[in-house]
Amino acid sequence: MSDQLIALKTRLAEVYDLNKVGALLSWDESVTMPPGGAQVRAEQSATVGRIAHELFVAPEVGRMLDDLEAHEQSLPYDSDDASLIRVTRYDYEKARKVPAGLRSEMTRLASLARNAWAGARASSDFTAFQPFLQQTLDLKKRYVDCVGGGKDDPYSVLLDDYERGMPTAEVRRIFAALKEATVPLIAAVAERAGSVDNSCLRGEFPVEQQRGFCLSLLRRFGFNEQEWRFDPTAHPFSTNMNLGDIRLATRYHTDSLGPAVFGVIHEFGHGLYEHGVSQSLERTPLCAGTSLGLHESQSRLWENLVGRSRAAWTYFLPELKLAFPSQLGDVDVDRFYRAINKVEPGFIRVDADELTYGLHVVLRFELEQEMLTGALTLDDLPDAWNARMKSYLGVDVPDAARGVLQDIHWSLGLIGYFPTYVIGSIVSAQIWEKVLAAMPDLPEQIERGEFAGLREWLRDNLHRHGRKFTPRETLQKVTGTDTVDVGPYVAYLRRKFGEIYDLPA
Amino acid sequence: MSDQLIALKTRLAEVYDLNKVGALLSWDESVTMPPGGAQVRAEQSATVGRIAHELFVAPEVGRMLDDLEAHEQSLPYDSDDASLIRVTRYDYEKARKVPAGLRSEMTRLASLARNAWAGARASSDFTAFQPFLQQTLDLKKRYVDCVGGGKDDPYSVLLDDYERGMPTAEVRRIFAALKEATVPLIAAVAERAGSVDNSCLRGEFPVEQQRGFCLSLLRRFGFNEQEWRFDPTAHPFSTNMNLGDIRLATRYHTDSLGPAVFGVIHEFGHGLYEHGVSQSLERTPLCAGTSLGLHESQSRLWENLVGRSRAAWTYFLPELKLAFPSQLGDVDVDRFYRAINKVEPGFIRVDADELTYGLHVVLRFELEQEMLTGALTLDDLPDAWNARMKSYLGVDVPDAARGVLQDIHWSLGLIGYFPTYVIGSIVSAQIWEKVLAAMPDLPEQIERGEFAGLREWLRDNLHRHGRKFTPRETLQKVTGTDTVDVGPYVAYLRRKFGEIYDLPA
Repeated sequence: MSDQLIALKTRLAEVYDLNKVGALLSWDESVTMPPGGAQVRAEQSATVGRIAHELFVAPEVGRMLDDLEAHEQSLPYDSDDASLIRVTRYDYEKARKVPAGLRSEMTRLASLARNAWAGARASSDFTAFQPFLQQTLDLKKRYVDCVGGGKDDPYSVLLDDYERGMPTAEVRRIFAALKEATVPLIAAVAERAGSVDNSCLRGEFPVEQQRGFCLSLLRRFGFNEQEWRFDPTAHPFSTNMNLGDIRLATRYHTDSLGPAVFGVIHEFGHGLYEHGVSQSLERTPLCAGTSLGLHESQSRLWENLVGRSRAAWTYFLPELKLAFPSQLGDVDVDRFYRAINKVEPGFIRVDADELTYGLHVVLRFELEQEMLTGALTLDDLPDAWNARMKSYLGVDVPDAARGVLQDIHWSLGLIGYFPTYVIGSIVSAQIWEKVLAAMPDLPEQIERGEFAGLREWLRDNLHRHGRKFTPRETLQKVTGTDTVDVGPYVAYLRRKFGEIYDLPA
Repeated sequence: MSDQLIALKTRLAEVYDLNKVGALLSWDESVTMPPGGAQVRAEQSATVGRIAHELFVAPEVGRMLDDLEAHEQSLPYDSDDASLIRVTRYDYEKARKVPAGLRSEMTRLASLARNAWAGARASSDFTAFQPFLQQTLDLKKRYVDCVGGGKDDPYSVLLDDYERGMPTAEVRRIFAALKEATVPLIAAVAERAGSVDNSCLRGEFPVEQQRGFCLSLLRRFGFNEQEWRFDPTAHPFSTNMNLGDIRLATRYHTDSLGPAVFGVIHEFGHGLYEHGVSQSLERTPLCAGTSLGLHESQSRLWENLVGRSRAAWTYFLPELKLAFPSQLGDVDVDRFYRAINKVEPGFIRVDADELTYGLHVVLRFELEQEMLTGALTLDDLPDAWNARMKSYLGVDVPDAARGVLQDIHWSLGLIGYFPTYVIGSIVSAQIWEKVLAAMPDLPEQIERGEFAGLREWLRDNLHRHGRKFTPRETLQKVTGTDTVDVGPYVAYLRRKFGEIYDLPA
């Protein structure tokens, strides 16, 4: 290996180490840190993040990349080394465009705005958050100007941070098709709302039994204590320290079974993606999922296509009934399957069912663009939110806390992030078609509690690539097309909910 | 504040942050990390440690310190800022003396030697560890040469890393006095060995009940969940992330009560010292205990002077009996007090009672010096070890695993470290005298389960100073003398064990 390549890899390994240390700091804050440690911990996290960033954007990294250009050209495009140089150059050039001053303003504002948002939500008072949201938008516009390329379409620049190479126009096209297909489907389901009863999911579900069941289910999926952890927390998440240390966390509601079980299945999908990245990419910036959309395709695949399938509960329901005999003793698979798939339009995104979820995101996607261009002023935002909730989902938003203030994202500066949730759902159905074509007996495997085949297919076709390829290149490798195609997802929704609600074909 | 002082404090805060992040990495390894994460974690820890070191020894830090010399002289000696500049200069000059190459050789060898030691101990084969110990000694000699000042007494240079300002000659004088007093005391006790029965400490002690009791005891001492954690682990330890995040860990043996209870009381003493450092010193190198000996004075004070006292168990025994009614139901305070203080010469240091513990350390102190000067070759080490164990404690060492290989310290390069354990015990008695003089009713407070007075006295007189002063200066502040004086400790041992074993005065 050339000296320059060794030098680059050494530097990138340091940056990786610090970023993963940052992930541990964050995990610890959510799972194990006593509250008294919070104030100094914020300083410690900031120090680690700042040093990692400085090491990465240092001019010598640029010189290494320049010197390695010929070497990169001499290697196959899909080799680890060529991919490392290529992706690092992309990251480096983008990171260098943002001045340190703007970056620290964004970090500082995110911290202030997050607190302001929490207070505003607690008192359901949008005006308390409004100036922070305005500042966030102003900084985002400056960010777009720095990064460049957002002249006619500033929103694409933001989207690109989360879903590289996915312009606003494409998301608009995708979401329009999704909206067109789901709005009438939701309406048809609404007419038969009473035909599905999900009362068995509410009752008394002690935390210890929920945790025991989740752990048993995770083990069956592929989790093992040698390389994974599973902890309780306030908001479900997954993170990892390296390929051999994947951490999931979920929350428990004692009166409801769904949040913990489907929360942890979702997070398992994220964890498995990170766990499956090729060992040859460890301690490089390629050692991660390639985009939020692709990541979400994995969490949604496990949560919905596996976790909300009749096949999975054919296997798991007997064990679940053992854990909660008095609540579920007389519930059969069909009733349980229908219960976990009941469609209930509501005003909270994270509580939404599979069918209505997409419209929550479409609404945010539209409002974000309008806020960014100024077509919508923040004074009018709550009303616009509420009107669109009524129009898309037929629900009346009771207050700002359960409306425009429900999500933390904007307070953290995450604008352009929401669409990736639905892109992930759509892609999960594209991938599922391919898995089924390769393993037609997958439903029977799942009915027998066998998940190794699915896991290995996903690793071979997607996970192992990490960030070597762009989202589009990766999609091409795993599905044979480089385009996000709403077709399989819409067909899946129609088939599934058509059957559950006995809709005319 | 001058620009230079701000610059220095900023740099030191970064170094502090990284060092504390290193402490979290290490805590996580011991308490929460899945084993699969170990290999990459070692790299992550090394990266953090190396960057912290590089930031600290950078030439600009030297220039800042030079520029601040006049400012330092203008401030009172005991002001925070003068102390910060003074102690930082001391640390900086020492750190700069050791070349990066030697430092990384030491780190690398410690990792290899630790594995070799673990294997050698498992097979009780000293020869498998011997070459690593020889290399460790060789590197230590090079280290002594770099640091300088070890011409006639290289061991003092090593001691100084753990107990600044404590030369070998002084430890020798202290240990000689301790040996002279304890050897006949141990002999006298041995003649009456049968008069104390500790069978009540063995039996069936389920982990959950042990943990519950330990937590209740800790809370009574001053632990609270807002700022502390308490976890199970393989080897008891305490660490902290900052003043508001103190973490204790202990192990549980289901057949024996002592290890968990006294282990965690010991670690509480360490934790309380760190917790009590003045907030004004946070994120500086002064935010820690001033030496290992002073630290150990705090753990030993809580473990032995509080934790093995009749007063403490007058309060805690009723609760302990509730946790273990069948094992302890008929045990009264006197019997329990005698049981936890039974003297039993053995060959394992960490299992030693309060009276014989010192001789385990004296033996290591002597052998370390002889190894370092070459007076003792490693071929002869196991025999020398065994002969001295026979001579000091009258025990026959059964094998190397329970003899010369029992401790991890030498494999990690910790030579000159052991003496601080006993210095701590001795100092704990000096401090205890002062506490008692200030609060003559302390035993009655303890009998009532009241520890706030003791805690506050220790914070006001010792903990809050952190590393502002040298160990000697600190000792002066807390006891009124700057000398480690074996007198109070020997008097305490004679009084305590004379009474328990009914020895002639």
